[in-house]
Amino acid sequence: MIKVGIYGASGYMGSEALRILLTHPEVSVEWATSRSETPIEHYHKNFYDRGIKFIKPSEVTPCAAVFFALPTGFTTEICQDFLKQGSKIIDYGADFRLKNRDEWERVYKMKHPNWKLAEEAVYGIVELHRPEIKKVNIIANPGCFSSSAILALAPLIKENLIDVDKIIVDGLSGTVGAGNEPDVALHHPEITNNILPYNVVDHRHTYEMEQELGLLAGKKVTINFTSYYVPISRGILTTSHSFPTGTAKRKEILELYKEFYKDEFFVKIIDIPKQENVSWNYLPYPWVAAVSATNFCHIGLDVDEKRNRIVVFSTLDSIGKGGALVGIQNFNLMFGLDERTGLDFYGIHPY
Amino acid sequence: MIKVGIYGASGYMGSEALRILLTHPEVSVEWATSRSETPIEHYHKNFYDRGIKFIKPSEVTPCAAVFFALPTGFTTEICQDFLKQGSKIIDYGADFRLKNRDEWERVYKMKHPNWKLAEEAVYGIVELHRPEIKKVNIIANPGCFSSSAILALAPLIKENLIDVDKIIVDGLSGTVGAGNEPDVALHHPEITNNILPYNVVDHRHTYEMEQELGLLAGKKVTINFTSYYVPISRGILTTSHSFPTGTAKRKEILELYKEFYKDEFFVKIIDIPKQENVSWNYLPYPWVAAVSATNFCHIGLDVDEKRNRIVVFSTLDSIGKGGALVGIQNFNLMFGLDERTGLDFYGIHPY
Amino acid sequence: MIKVGIYGASGYMGSEALRILLTHPEVSVEWATSRSETPIEHYHKNFYDRGIKFIKPSEVTPCAAVFFALPTGFTTEICQDFLKQGSKIIDYGADFRLKNRDEWERVYKMKHPNWKLAEEAVYGIVELHRPEIKKVNIIANPGCFSSSAILALAPLIKENLIDVDKIIVDGLSGTVGAGNEPDVALHHPEITNNILPYNVVDHRHTYEMEQELGLLAGKKVTINFTSYYVPISRGILTTSHSFPTGTAKRKEILELYKEFYKDEFFVKIIDIPKQENVSWNYLPYPWVAAVSATNFCHIGLDVDEKRNRIVVFSTLDSIGKGGALVGIQNFNLMFGLDERTGLDFYGIHPY
Amino acid sequence: MIKVGIYGASGYMGSEALRILLTHPEVSVEWATSRSETPIEHYHKNFYDRGIKFIKPSEVTPCAAVFFALPTGFTTEICQDFLKQGSKIIDYGADFRLKNRDEWERVYKMKHPNWKLAEEAVYGIVELHRPEIKKVNIIANPGCFSSSAILALAPLIKENLIDVDKIIVDGLSGTVGAGNEPDVALHHPEITNNILPYNVVDHRHTYEMEQELGLLAGKKVTINFTSYYVPISRGILTTSHSFPTGTAKRKEILELYKEFYKDEFFVKIIDIPKQENVSWNYLPYPWVAAVSATNFCHIGLDVDEKRNRIVVFSTLDSIGKGGALVGIQNFNLMFGLDERTGLDFYGIHPY
Repeated sequence: MIKVGIYGASGYMGSEALRILLTHPEVSVEWATSRSETPIEHYHKNFYDRGIKFIKPSEVTPCAAVFFALPTGFTTEICQDFLKQGSKIIDYGADFRLKNRDEWERVYKMKHPNWKLAEEAVYGIVELHRPEIKKVNIIANPGCFSSSAILALAPLIKENLIDVDKIIVDGLSGTVGAGNEPDVALHHPEITNNILPYNVVDHRHTYEMEQELGLLAGKKVTINFTSYYVPISRGILTTSHSFPTGTAKRKEILELYKEFYKDEFFVKIIDIPKQENVSWNYLPYPWVAAVSATNFCHIGLDVDEKRNRIVVFSTLDSIGKGGALVGIQNFNLMFGLDERTGLDFYGIHPY
Repeated sequence: MIKVGIYGASGYMGSEALRILLTHPEVSVEWATSRSETPIEHYHKNFYDRGIKFIKPSEVTPCAAVFFALPTGFTTEICQDFLKQGSKIIDYGADFRLKNRDEWERVYKMKHPNWKLAEEAVYGIVELHRPEIKKVNIIANPGCFSSSAILALAPLIKENLIDVDKIIVDGLSGTVGAGNEPDVALHHPEITNNILPYNVVDHRHTYEMEQELGLLAGKKVTINFTSYYVPISRGILTTSHSFPTGTAKRKEILELYKEFYKDEFFVKIIDIPKQENVSWNYLPYPWVAAVSATNFCHIGLDVDEKRNRIVVFSTLDSIGKGGALVGIQNFNLMFGLDERTGLDFYGIHPY
Repeated sequence: MIKVGIYGASGYMGSEALRILLTHPEVSVEWATSRSETPIEHYHKNFYDRGIKFIKPSEVTPCAAVFFALPTGFTTEICQDFLKQGSKIIDYGADFRLKNRDEWERVYKMKHPNWKLAEEAVYGIVELHRPEIKKVNIIANPGCFSSSAILALAPLIKENLIDVDKIIVDGLSGTVGAGNEPDVALHHPEITNNILPYNVVDHRHTYEMEQELGLLAGKKVTINFTSYYVPISRGILTTSHSFPTGTAKRKEILELYKEFYKDEFFVKIIDIPKQENVSWNYLPYPWVAAVSATNFCHIGLDVDEKRNRIVVFSTLDSIGKGGALVGIQNFNLMFGLDERTGLDFYGIHPY
Repeated sequence: MIKVGIYGASGYMGSEALRILLTHPEVSVEWATSRSETPIEHYHKNFYDRGIKFIKPSEVTPCAAVFFALPTGFTTEICQDFLKQGSKIIDYGADFRLKNRDEWERVYKMKHPNWKLAEEAVYGIVELHRPEIKKVNIIANPGCFSSSAILALAPLIKENLIDVDKIIVDGLSGTVGAGNEPDVALHHPEITNNILPYNVVDHRHTYEMEQELGLLAGKKVTINFTSYYVPISRGILTTSHSFPTGTAKRKEILELYKEFYKDEFFVKIIDIPKQENVSWNYLPYPWVAAVSATNFCHIGLDVDEKRNRIVVFSTLDSIGKGGALVGIQNFNLMFGLDERTGLDFYGIHPY
């Protein structure tokens, strides 16, 4: 059994990693930290009476892998001792996500505590970096919106089919994305019949999208990204609008996506033909509820052949394939396991 | 008192008109029709024991104004007798919304029953057509998404500030927009934790947006529109992304909008400065809950000055300012009343 | 115009009073206070750009009526100066609700600042105390659950039909009932798919129910009350279960309720016969959505004639007929106005 | 591997069984039927591209166990051939739940097709019937509300602590309990801000509760049960109110429950002490979100020591521990497996 520890398990991301790692057949969860003295069942009633206790950060022990769900900057400080002991690191935070130091320091408004580690880290989009992930000691787990948008746009960018200066991405997020800290805007009476635009321009995840898609394009890519909270708890739907440089046909673009992801278990291209007697017009597109609490990303698309626009929908769970669970997929690869290990369950319906 | 009748009051649009017209100080509601024998309280429990009954369509009587909430094509057939009697017509449907007959017949997949009436009708966006509305006998009440997007983009289009070939509009709608007919996709267990893209390309409302914004631009405007249901009941948030032809500054664009709508009571430009100790980053943008069940449209915006994109948010209620209530605003103008009459109440908080 | 002021308008109760008083035809709202420096639109976006500003509590001016939405104890302190000036007082808080001082001080865990005022006050359930309300200077506006349960049980208690030692009341509340202070339990991700029992025994409102129903019975009445938050924003559904001392028939009990409330405009007894082709089994009972944001209370009932139990459902809005709006109904009576003034609008459908 | 088949997998109950059986380590799912020609991904997008297809009912093959999720009466007809082949049967429907034939035929309004099978069947509440379940060939899987209320009341009834003529049970259900057939009352705009009482008296599940608790009491027990839909998708919270025959203390009753269920893995008695700085008053009670999509039942309770009432909350998922998953727990026992097999995962937080 591979010994693992989790930093920051009182939050939603750390507890989601804990939930899955506890049932992972090759893993022994050695510890999960919380700075608070409050017992775990006050944070997460799903763990009530299952024999799980938080430890204090001062009580951690050596592990083969350590998952970090900490505020920006903390992981860099703490992970260095573990790296010396030979641990592998999965960072759910943003410490190592960007390759440009100036950009990182401007975006995160702090001096990076140890840029060398950021240089060593691999950005953990499995579908783009599988070979490097298998060999690396530090994973920069991607931002939730970033995973969704990068997976959505990669085939078009790779094939050089669209105008890379005019890409628009609208990202709708469940409120779990805001974390577990109460706030007026996420107070139930305020949001239950509401939609909240936030970080409307220059969202931090934009830089991850531009970095990864730029690498894929071999040139500068501009992402015009806007995010919103909608009154669901989990899951993200991003819509990526782009303008083809040539003439796009729905059928061909759909084939391109199927081909691009044909070996990927966790990315599904939704292609459901119309059925009579079914509310069919909703059907050809991905539903976020179908991937909530899983490591799947469902992608669907359409093309306005009259106006020449491509629309790609991508759905995943912000703390699933967009967070804690893709971190476990990365972990599996780092340890030579089948990447599906512990993650090969089904979505829930109805969610 | 002005005598009015309502066709099709078992549906959500007709009943919303009924709700407000019943308290309108200058109006006497003479009748409201339903084809069904089922009493009104089975459809709308808010009218329970208030002395209101549906009549059959065969029982209508002459009125000064008739509101139509009927399936496409029916209004044209029925309204002609009323026009002969001198009635004024407000059509909540799509019979008279487009000025290009070929386009209308292709989009609505039928031959138009009487195109002359469509030619006479005025498209009922008050902020663009107030003088004509005051004189006309037929109002083509706009589609809900159309109202939202047209009001959002009018200032930019009018001032010729953006690339009119690359406008993207994402329209998030409450489920009331789907009407009162049960359907698998709107069955509560399916949608309550879900987001449903639908009519992803070539939505019918696109043609209204292109028509009205084209008129304003004095040239062809292309709108790339996509719609979704989100799990709220009422209200629409459209996001209009556009690329400035020059360099846009948030402050200047905001001033432009304030100036453009400075005399409009029902359109508010949201400009709320950051406050300490308030979840401020959500604040500068409009919240759909604040305008639900009202005739207000709240507009807010931001500019990505780094990437040169303008983002305009527009919120209204799909059967309020996006439907039944703007129809009453149109009615007020047609009858020489203050356009606020019967509509000058406040939004509800929390909704 | 009757000059009124509102203490505590940053909260949900005070702002709801403000919303309706602003459109009340006989009222001039002179001021609304907030202790915070934050502008009103940060709290309530529905008031954006409508010319409304908070004043500080130190800036109040004399008014014919003052509405108080303050924490327990504060109203008693502040209202005394207004009383001396001849103002009438409507207290949305609990300062004057109980007639037994020992009970009040035990329940609210403080010494009452001026019990003489509590003795003068009338408990503002209009349907039970209309004559006294017309003559009094202080209204103790009832608790939201109290209004719902008292209206639900009054006819049975008055007619002495049930065992008054074994009454059970389950109260389901929208989250607006929790106020506008963010809290983990009302953080959207926690509650949107959840139900939260709270104040499961000995809820403070229990004492109001026992007091008022005891007065009506002429003997001690015990209410076994439990409350919950459900993920809706507004509205309360209470279910009152009771055991008939004799044999109860649905038809007779329904007639009793209709008779009891036959002159009450704001209390409706739901009696909707089954219809074919309608999801009928949901129909005979009141729906909370139909009374949200109104001053109506809808009551429905059923009798298990096999097991001899009476079930009475009562729905109202916790800050409507259960709070701010019934306070305005009380105000109307205190000032000799028709009690419907400013409140005679329709519920919203769909809410 | 144990071969299993599922009848009726287009519905929510059958598909939930399918979801878990597909990952059950000792099971091979041979088939799942649907009468419709529509592919599985139209019903359940969570199964998209996972290699699963419905078969027609005519194509079934022999299996060691067959799960039935069919309308009342159908299972009895179909299961007989399987019984002859030595299959074990788990019926998610109501065919075999009641032991009194007259009662069954009156409640289900049909003649029972083969009462001998109902006599052979064991009612599948594991905590009360484990020994019989291990030996039987037919399981009558309990109704969702029945499981919740029976588990909640069993300790009090067994110990003869309460008045068994005056038990009240309020059952709040997520909308998944209504099945997948669209209906006006469950149409999203109607229910999202609403609460729907239904089957207010004499609900069919009442008879299961009375039967099982009567057996435990050794005398007639009367359950006064009322059910509601609340706008969550999954999960049930039942509140059981009862009047102690003696004097009840919270602490003692809590100990009784802990003792009663001390060997039960899937039933947890919530006992969380108050914590400072935590919204503690919500904490001591079970949260339905914590058990959604699991086989757990969380029970919590309180006692009004002043008024002498016991309140027991019981939460489970209507198609989890209240349906499909407890059926798998029963299956495990029938086949000599550890009852946790395939079910030993954690609840999801936030759900």
